[in-house]
Amino acid sequence: MRPILMADPAHPHPPFPHRHLLGVAGLSPADIKGLLASAEDAVSLSRQVEKKSATLRGRTQINLFFENSTRTQSSFEIAGKRLGADVMNMAVGNSSIKKGETLLDTAATLNAMRPDIIVVRHHAAGAVALLAQKVDCSVVNAGDGAHEHPTQALLDALTITRAKGRIEGLVVAICGDVLHSRVARSNILLLNALGARVRVIAPSTLLPADVERLGVTVFRDMRRGLEGVDVVMMLRLQLERMNGSFVPSVKEYFKHFGLDDAKLAYAKPDAVVMHPGPMNRGVEIASDVADGPRSLIRDQVEMGVAVRMAVLETLGRRLPNAA
Amino acid sequence: MRPILMADPAHPHPPFPHRHLLGVAGLSPADIKGLLASAEDAVSLSRQVEKKSATLRGRTQINLFFENSTRTQSSFEIAGKRLGADVMNMAVGNSSIKKGETLLDTAATLNAMRPDIIVVRHHAAGAVALLAQKVDCSVVNAGDGAHEHPTQALLDALTITRAKGRIEGLVVAICGDVLHSRVARSNILLLNALGARVRVIAPSTLLPADVERLGVTVFRDMRRGLEGVDVVMMLRLQLERMNGSFVPSVKEYFKHFGLDDAKLAYAKPDAVVMHPGPMNRGVEIASDVADGPRSLIRDQVEMGVAVRMAVLETLGRRLPNAA
Amino acid sequence: MRPILMADPAHPHPPFPHRHLLGVAGLSPADIKGLLASAEDAVSLSRQVEKKSATLRGRTQINLFFENSTRTQSSFEIAGKRLGADVMNMAVGNSSIKKGETLLDTAATLNAMRPDIIVVRHHAAGAVALLAQKVDCSVVNAGDGAHEHPTQALLDALTITRAKGRIEGLVVAICGDVLHSRVARSNILLLNALGARVRVIAPSTLLPADVERLGVTVFRDMRRGLEGVDVVMMLRLQLERMNGSFVPSVKEYFKHFGLDDAKLAYAKPDAVVMHPGPMNRGVEIASDVADGPRSLIRDQVEMGVAVRMAVLETLGRRLPNAA
Repeated sequence: MRPILMADPAHPHPPFPHRHLLGVAGLSPADIKGLLASAEDAVSLSRQVEKKSATLRGRTQINLFFENSTRTQSSFEIAGKRLGADVMNMAVGNSSIKKGETLLDTAATLNAMRPDIIVVRHHAAGAVALLAQKVDCSVVNAGDGAHEHPTQALLDALTITRAKGRIEGLVVAICGDVLHSRVARSNILLLNALGARVRVIAPSTLLPADVERLGVTVFRDMRRGLEGVDVVMMLRLQLERMNGSFVPSVKEYFKHFGLDDAKLAYAKPDAVVMHPGPMNRGVEIASDVADGPRSLIRDQVEMGVAVRMAVLETLGRRLPNAA
Repeated sequence: MRPILMADPAHPHPPFPHRHLLGVAGLSPADIKGLLASAEDAVSLSRQVEKKSATLRGRTQINLFFENSTRTQSSFEIAGKRLGADVMNMAVGNSSIKKGETLLDTAATLNAMRPDIIVVRHHAAGAVALLAQKVDCSVVNAGDGAHEHPTQALLDALTITRAKGRIEGLVVAICGDVLHSRVARSNILLLNALGARVRVIAPSTLLPADVERLGVTVFRDMRRGLEGVDVVMMLRLQLERMNGSFVPSVKEYFKHFGLDDAKLAYAKPDAVVMHPGPMNRGVEIASDVADGPRSLIRDQVEMGVAVRMAVLETLGRRLPNAA
Repeated sequence: MRPILMADPAHPHPPFPHRHLLGVAGLSPADIKGLLASAEDAVSLSRQVEKKSATLRGRTQINLFFENSTRTQSSFEIAGKRLGADVMNMAVGNSSIKKGETLLDTAATLNAMRPDIIVVRHHAAGAVALLAQKVDCSVVNAGDGAHEHPTQALLDALTITRAKGRIEGLVVAICGDVLHSRVARSNILLLNALGARVRVIAPSTLLPADVERLGVTVFRDMRRGLEGVDVVMMLRLQLERMNGSFVPSVKEYFKHFGLDDAKLAYAKPDAVVMHPGPMNRGVEIASDVADGPRSLIRDQVEMGVAVRMAVLETLGRRLPNAA
């Protein structure tokens, strides 16, 4: 067994001054770059035959998912196991929370089991931060309502950096259901922090009222918005989050906001395409584009495991859950 | 890796003469004290940064839960993993048992997979003992109907011992839904075995007919029952177990049998408060008391992991599943 | 830690020329015998106190079950863990596949997480082979529709070999719902490959049209079919797979095709009885026979873990998922 990530004294990582990872908000550019550098090491480890380190040996990681997300939970589970942690998944759907236990009682109960890291997904914005206040260990936000999904933004940044060599100065368009998207929000914050120029492209009904305050340029037309863009980030149309306020016709939506080859032609010739998954093919993205040579969608999944390894390792190293 | 619990030859544990842990009934005071001593070592291990031993390395532990219990299952899962066991959770809700397989076929099937320990929760009293007769490995009862829940009684005893320095001579009141409670039953047996004086406080409708035979004093009034008590153990009102026989009004129940500061004032000034969780706040216990300075409810959860480590380690050491 | 299975240079295994295990079809007799020899070593390992090897240390195994099967999934999970792999179960019922993700997107997503082995059960024949084409790792078919279930056939062969000393020349009767049975199909292929003489016994309505092309003799009467047989393999009556085409009366079915002592008397005096489980007692098999001295049903379960260890080890050794 060899410890990864800290092994090379020639490449010390900067100290990470946070106990939790609750959002991109609050991370400095140095924090972000440190995590991305660690994640590069994790990519290498995951490509080896024996993809296992002892970094988190004897640490307890709990994945507490109040919303189902096989994809994200699996990514965190694999990440933790590759670092040697004991990983436990909590099936909240079956739990005492359904018997009326409060979120804070759940937090206190888990905390008493002396975990080192709790990874939480919750349907309510702010719930993860609330839980973090009640525990002694590190908490990672794996998505809270329409608020933040920081590891998604980090894995997107890693994917872009590997494809383009940098983020600073790139023009990135985030397209689609911005209103319901924690992915959009976390990406806007991170891309701005690293010096990209961020556009959002969406129908008015799928734009938050104050989106321009986040430092983005707003487009309501795909062709105009994609002009000269380096990176096209498509969002999943979150039909399950729309409470009747706006249920678009899928066919109409695709016509105007779905990414196909014709619309992609407006972006730069070497523009890349991303999507956080799972995709609605034929709704927000055409299969030709999703599976085409400019798609980085598979890379995003691989970078997801790597970024989560970096986050778990960084937090686990920082805050041993000592007595 | 270092073996815990048996590491120090200066503190040998007494031999544990049982293959299974099916209930508190049948355990001698020496058996109980041996488990509590092992659990103290496990508390220390769980408070270290690297909370991992090799005691159960290469042993297979199966958690077979016929009733959902995130809390108890998690506690056993974390316990087994910290001892180095391979832990497998069986989702019975999805299993072939639903295709009509009998409990004994399930037992025989699991047994053939050569596990070392099976942890079982079942809705029927006696089901765990029946299963234990059909397997070659050790079986731990994680709660069977209204019969027994021995690790809960052990963790409660550990919690009391750490708070009060002893159990002998203490006055302990167990309050609430005694009728449906395996927790009450196991606690009465254990506390009596170690020399406590046990009271139960409940409305007549929530008392088993023969409860006095267990060696307790019965009270039907909280204030009288709590007078001079060292330990107040509240029980969860098991509305889900009440088959229409007695469905109390929650508000009335709280008024008469819910623990609030006013009722707690009748106990000794240094009395401690316990609850096995998950709590119905405002039903059997007021939030002020649950979160107050005399509450040991969080400690109970921590001691739960430790006691289960001690049980798994003791049984796993005793009975290697050799050919 | 010691590597098993390859440890002894005096017993080298023949090279296994396949990346996947999608079915018995395509395996040579040498391939099958190599897997059975490895499985013998795995039986020994599982009977030790410390049943753990480092063979698949740092490898990632994903169990992707589109159909529930606690029994088979548990067997693969225990097998992988005993070999030191990081094992992850994917609960497909809760996954993004339900949000409309295609099988191929699921395959691509999992592949990007860099697993070494994916174990797949799917309700559609051919789905596992399709998935295998889209990934870089090894794929094991854990049952696809009515097509194949190769590890079941291997475990049955191992069970027979251990009981009878050989397979060549034995007369084996496969009885019951052959029409819906991937178990029957894989067993017919394997037993024929190793030189057994295979009969199928079933009512016409439960026989595939072209079954004789598989190289079996067909009987429609249990007594005649069992005459002189060495091995009786009963099949589970798969009521859940019958789309109204033929729903037999369970009582009638048992009378004509259920294995009881009277019918078993027609087989050889030393004939053995097998069933893949879970059993419908009193439907396709009488309890007296299932639990009787000639039943190998429990052995089959034990051999199941061993055969899966052999398969995982053989594929994991062959194809490291290197960069």
